Amino acid sequence: MALPQIPSGDDFGPDNLAFGVVAPRTGGGPRVVVRLGDHVIDLDALGADALDVDIAALRGAAMNALFALGPDRWRALRARLRGLVRIADPRVHRALIPLDDVDVLLPVEIGDYVDFYSSLHHATNLGRILRPDTDPLLPNWRHLPVGYTGRAGTVVVSGTPVTRPSGLRPGTDGPASDPTFGPSTLLDYELEVGFVVGTGGARIAPDDADRHVFGAVLVNDWSARDIQAYEYQPLGPHLGKSFATTISPWVVPLDALAPYLVAPPEQVPEPAPYLRAARPWGLDLELRVELNGHEVCATNFRNLYWTFAQQLAHLTVNGATSRPGDLFASGTVSGPEPSERGSLIELTWRGATPLPLPDGTTRAFLADGDTVTLRGWCGGSGRPRVGFGTCTGTIIPAPGG
Amino acid sequence: MALPQIPSGDDFGPDNLAFGVVAPRTGGGPRVVVRLGDHVIDLDALGADALDVDIAALRGAAMNALFALGPDRWRALRARLRGLVRIADPRVHRALIPLDDVDVLLPVEIGDYVDFYSSLHHATNLGRILRPDTDPLLPNWRHLPVGYTGRAGTVVVSGTPVTRPSGLRPGTDGPASDPTFGPSTLLDYELEVGFVVGTGGARIAPDDADRHVFGAVLVNDWSARDIQAYEYQPLGPHLGKSFATTISPWVVPLDALAPYLVAPPEQVPEPAPYLRAARPWGLDLELRVELNGHEVCATNFRNLYWTFAQQLAHLTVNGATSRPGDLFASGTVSGPEPSERGSLIELTWRGATPLPLPDGTTRAFLADGDTVTLRGWCGGSGRPRVGFGTCTGTIIPAPGG
Repeated sequence: MALPQIPSGDDFGPDNLAFGVVAPRTGGGPRVVVRLGDHVIDLDALGADALDVDIAALRGAAMNALFALGPDRWRALRARLRGLVRIADPRVHRALIPLDDVDVLLPVEIGDYVDFYSSLHHATNLGRILRPDTDPLLPNWRHLPVGYTGRAGTVVVSGTPVTRPSGLRPGTDGPASDPTFGPSTLLDYELEVGFVVGTGGARIAPDDADRHVFGAVLVNDWSARDIQAYEYQPLGPHLGKSFATTISPWVVPLDALAPYLVAPPEQVPEPAPYLRAARPWGLDLELRVELNGHEVCATNFRNLYWTFAQQLAHLTVNGATSRPGDLFASGTVSGPEPSERGSLIELTWRGATPLPLPDGTTRAFLADGDTVTLRGWCGGSGRPRVGFGTCTGTIIPAPGG
Repeated sequence: MALPQIPSGDDFGPDNLAFGVVAPRTGGGPRVVVRLGDHVIDLDALGADALDVDIAALRGAAMNALFALGPDRWRALRARLRGLVRIADPRVHRALIPLDDVDVLLPVEIGDYVDFYSSLHHATNLGRILRPDTDPLLPNWRHLPVGYTGRAGTVVVSGTPVTRPSGLRPGTDGPASDPTFGPSTLLDYELEVGFVVGTGGARIAPDDADRHVFGAVLVNDWSARDIQAYEYQPLGPHLGKSFATTISPWVVPLDALAPYLVAPPEQVPEPAPYLRAARPWGLDLELRVELNGHEVCATNFRNLYWTFAQQLAHLTVNGATSRPGDLFASGTVSGPEPSERGSLIELTWRGATPLPLPDGTTRAFLADGDTVTLRGWCGGSGRPRVGFGTCTGTIIPAPGG
């Protein structure tokens, strides 16, 4: 009995084995599964004997109990699964459920969500757009990964509609004029990569990142530029970001990404000792953005200035604990070329050069009904492909807006 | 059989009935209890018959299952408990455990933690200290309650030691100089009041606040002023705040505070419609700060410019959902007089006028070994006292610091 054929260009071949949570439409409740091609492997059905793992950790509506097993057990579980898939073990075949027969859920009960700002090109673009008369990079940017805490309770899974947020927007008669309330007119997406903490801790060294990070997802940090512009001084973004953050449903294990780790860009000046790593923590991950099915950005995560290992070290260096289920994201990933800009505010230079779409319309920012889809994958071109699938969302109008 | 006598000045008399979570030292696991004088009422021992409530909601390590019952059931439970206490029902007597025989735990599994900046006097003081050459209030301050998302995973219960955080601090050779890494030398407290969400929702009107807020706690938003100063542009505070936030363990029900709701200060200009309330949501709550047992601040929460009802309306107006267990805090509460300043940075004007203590030492900021204790109560002077107990923490040195 052979397992279903998986095309070599599929995101979810046997070298990936990404984890997620689904609810079978036939009932039985949510459970942790592993994606394989256009099927999922029901680990509960596969059974404790086959997996040599506490099966209770695989039941329930989130991966958090799996995280609690610790990195040695994740690795053993993944190794065991790879072995079973490689030999097309009949127990795997019996545990397969077609993706069409399940509802795909948010995979993790997210503790704290921290969003960074770690792309040199993005931060430079934003600085030029928003503060054209000054150095685009603030003095702290090259010394630490700037970031802020986002709203964990509004992280949603790919496919969830995103309602246009309302709030106070800058007045139209200059900076001192009164704000106006209404739906955001400068709604944007942000192409990001997020990392899910499996094992918590404090004061985590960068080179210990793979003892703590379980895996990665794509993140769309939807942003209302007008609401954010009005509110953000002096405490940072709040309602301009808190309405929704979309993540892809399949948590790609860091072990599956390990072959694609590369040296990150050179950092000048050399960062403080707590941010220094001996191992390469850049990631050669191709990233794409589609707006209504039309590709509007193609870039690579390896451009990111601060690595995820440095981000985790930074957010715990003050003694703050990280917990299993925490999510931290890269910030918008942009590359050096105009075609590599990971948000509309950069692509259209805050609306100055609207983006033409194949249907003859243009966009300065997102319109109601627009669908944004992120894609990402490592490998291809002769190397095994390890992909993330899609992270997608469609804008629906503000109530009464 | 009479219940233990409770002095009239006790924070936890029969008009309060604050909820918390304890673990009896005799075993049996964590459970939801109600504080009464120097005892707790074990609701599980009191029993479902006496309480007419799903007893499963009272078992477990957090109040969140109780929240899920909804406001009508909380109110019924509270009314039933008040009746039983009033008649000194023998079942209450049998369910009492001395406070000395329990470990008092964090009462709530906190979802998202949002911290506001809603005291006019605090924001004005900070503006004068940090931006002396400009208008101390930024243009948005009177139009919306400025706030940011804080780290939920490092909210700790009163009594938990607080380790001095380390991080990058501004260089000493002017604003362009390189930062230095080490323990914060400008460690501060912030006197705040926090509100616990019982029933979630989005786009909550201010006048519906009592359908959503379960109750209130005292909050100490420990702050490392040097780390925050270096990191906070442009995305707001992060490591300067994320290392620890202390809350008092007893959640005082909003129904117990309702007799002390008062009209808030006049708001000019009139806020946007989504922030307008017909009911009075100011709170006449006396607040105190002690540093090593010496009172250093006495103020009242009724001074707060933005009410908690407006804060909840604001943080959900963009469509963001609030969940049961969310915590949002007022921001530092300061009054108009120097003796009413709710943080050391204000009391010492960022160290310019150090604070003398009775032991002959002075403080610009907190020293290792210092203990900060917050207190708060409504009533007294002939009205029933409804208090919060204490919110306390002692600074321990940074590792290797």
